[in-house]
Amino acid sequence: MSTASSRPVCILGLGLIGGSLLRRLAADQAPVFGYNRSQATVDAATADGYDASSDLVATLIKAAELDAVIVLATPVTTLGPIVDAIADHAPACLVTDVVSVKEEVARIVARHHPGGRYVGGHPMAGTAYSGWDATDPSLFEGAMWMVTTHDDTPADDWLAVAAMARAVGSNVVPAANDAHDRAAAAISHNPHLTAAVTAAVGAGESSLSLRLAAGSFRDGTRVAGTAPDLQRAMLEANSVALLNTLSETIDLLVAARDRLRDHGDVASLVEAGHRARQRYDAIAGGELQPIIDVTVGDDGWQQELRRQAHLARVWLG
Amino acid sequence: MSTASSRPVCILGLGLIGGSLLRRLAADQAPVFGYNRSQATVDAATADGYDASSDLVATLIKAAELDAVIVLATPVTTLGPIVDAIADHAPACLVTDVVSVKEEVARIVARHHPGGRYVGGHPMAGTAYSGWDATDPSLFEGAMWMVTTHDDTPADDWLAVAAMARAVGSNVVPAANDAHDRAAAAISHNPHLTAAVTAAVGAGESSLSLRLAAGSFRDGTRVAGTAPDLQRAMLEANSVALLNTLSETIDLLVAARDRLRDHGDVASLVEAGHRARQRYDAIAGGELQPIIDVTVGDDGWQQELRRQAHLARVWLG
Repeated sequence: MSTASSRPVCILGLGLIGGSLLRRLAADQAPVFGYNRSQATVDAATADGYDASSDLVATLIKAAELDAVIVLATPVTTLGPIVDAIADHAPACLVTDVVSVKEEVARIVARHHPGGRYVGGHPMAGTAYSGWDATDPSLFEGAMWMVTTHDDTPADDWLAVAAMARAVGSNVVPAANDAHDRAAAAISHNPHLTAAVTAAVGAGESSLSLRLAAGSFRDGTRVAGTAPDLQRAMLEANSVALLNTLSETIDLLVAARDRLRDHGDVASLVEAGHRARQRYDAIAGGELQPIIDVTVGDDGWQQELRRQAHLARVWLG
Repeated sequence: MSTASSRPVCILGLGLIGGSLLRRLAADQAPVFGYNRSQATVDAATADGYDASSDLVATLIKAAELDAVIVLATPVTTLGPIVDAIADHAPACLVTDVVSVKEEVARIVARHHPGGRYVGGHPMAGTAYSGWDATDPSLFEGAMWMVTTHDDTPADDWLAVAAMARAVGSNVVPAANDAHDRAAAAISHNPHLTAAVTAAVGAGESSLSLRLAAGSFRDGTRVAGTAPDLQRAMLEANSVALLNTLSETIDLLVAARDRLRDHGDVASLVEAGHRARQRYDAIAGGELQPIIDVTVGDDGWQQELRRQAHLARVWLG
C-alpha cells in the first residue's frame, strides 16, 4: 500500500488543520507543500522552513506535475473558486479535504469539478484556536479521521487518503457522508451551540457570576471561544442535521424544565446525561478494534467497512 | 485576625470537598478532625493518618470542647438531622458549610438550629469525581470561596470563615445568599444541565457518533459524569434560580433554531457565546483585585463588601 510519506501532498489552506498537517507531514520528510491566500501566513510558514505559496495557480500546476494528493483545508464557504482552479490546473489529481461537513463539500466538488477524483475526509481534532500560530504537528495523534466510504469509492483513492491519515497518527474511520454529518452534528456542531448558550446565560446574570465560574463553566464553554466565523462556516454548512439535534436538545431541556417546575426534580435529564457520558468514557478509554476480514478493493468492501465502523470498530491498517 | 490554622476545625462529611479540606488543613498542622457516616470512608481517612470518626455525637462534643468551627460538608438533602445534632451537642459553635446552594442551607440551619451562629460558604471548586479517593489537598488553591455576607453577619464570625478559606489557598468573595444562588445557577448548575443534554443528544445518534467524538464533546460533557445523586442534590436545592436560567437557555436555543431553520444562520447565538467566553477569559486570566478601604466590623461593612464583589473585586486579605 502506498503511504503519504511516499506520495506528495498539496495542502490548500494553512490554518489550524491544514498548517498542522503540513508540519506533521514535513516532519517525516514527506514531499509536502501548501497554499494560503494570506501572504502573512505564507511568510510565517516559509520563515518556519516550510514550502508555502500565496499563488494558487502555481501551487496547483506543481501539484499536477507531482501527481500530489490535494487537501482542501479552507472553510467550506471558500471552496467553490478553489475547486474551480483545481479543475482548471490539476484536474487529474486526487482531492480530499479536512472540512467538518461532508455532504456539502461533496456537492461543491461535484458542481465545480464534475468527474474529478474526490474522497472526503475529516480529522476529529481541533482546539479553540485558529491560524498558523495555533498549528501543532501532534494535533492528529490518536484522533479519529473519517474517510468517506461510498459504494462507488475507488479502492486506490480511498487507500491513498487513509494512508495519509495514518501517516500523521490518526485512526481511520470509514463512513458515508450523511452518516458522518449526522454524527458530526450530534457530537461536535450541537456541542458548539450548547457551549454558546451556556456561556451567554452564565455571563448574563451578573458580574459576580463570571468571577465565581469554575470548572463546569470553563470546560462547558471552551469551544464557544472559537472564532465565530469558523464556527458559523462549520455549523451552517450542516444545517439540516444540526436542526435535528438542536430540536432534540430543546425538547429534552423543555421536558426537564417542566419536570423541575412541576415536581422539583431533574432526575431524568441528569441520569440520561450520566449514562451517555459513561458510554463515551468506555469508548474513548477502550481498546481500538481493528476492522477485520476486509480487503479494500474486494467486492462490497465499502459497505463492509461502513458496517464495521457502526459496530464501533476502526481501521488501524 | 485569627486564622484557621490557629483555630480547630470540625468537618462533617469527608467526600470530595470535606475530605480535601481535612487533608489541606491537616497539612498545615492545623487542629482538624472529621465525621463521616460511612465507616469505610472513616477507615480510609484514618488509615491515611487523619482524625476521623463515624460517631457524630462524639465528634460534636469534641467540637464544643475545642470551640471548633464546624463545617457542613454533606449533600443538602442530608443536613436537617446533622444540624439538629449540632443544636443538641455543640450549640455555641460557629457553623459554616461548603454546599453549593446558600438560601436552602440557611433555611435548614434557621429551622433546625434557631439562634445558632452560621455564616455560609461555598468553594467554587470540584471535579467530576467524588468520595474520599477523589480528595485533593490542592483542590482549593486559587479557587473563589464565596462567604455569605448579610447585613446582620457578625464581623468576627465572618472573619473566621474567611480566614479558613484563605488558609487553604482560596480567594474570598463576599455575597448575599440570593445573589450567590443566582450566580451558581448561571455558571454551575445550568452548565450541568447543558452538559447532560449535550451528552444525551450526542450518544443518541448512532454508535458511530461517540467514536468520532473529540474535544468539543469531551469537554462539553465532562460534568455530566458526576454522580447523578450529587448532581440532583445540588441542582434541585436551587430549583427557583435554576428554573430561570434553564428557561433562558431554552429561549435562546429556540431563537437559534428558528433562525437556523428560516435563514440558515447561527450568527446571533455563536457571537453571544463568543463574547461571553471572551469576558470570562478576561476575568479568569486577569489580576485579582483586592477589596479596598473596608474594615470588617465598621458600620455597613457587609454592604460595602457585597458592592465591591459585584464590581469584580475579590478579597485577598
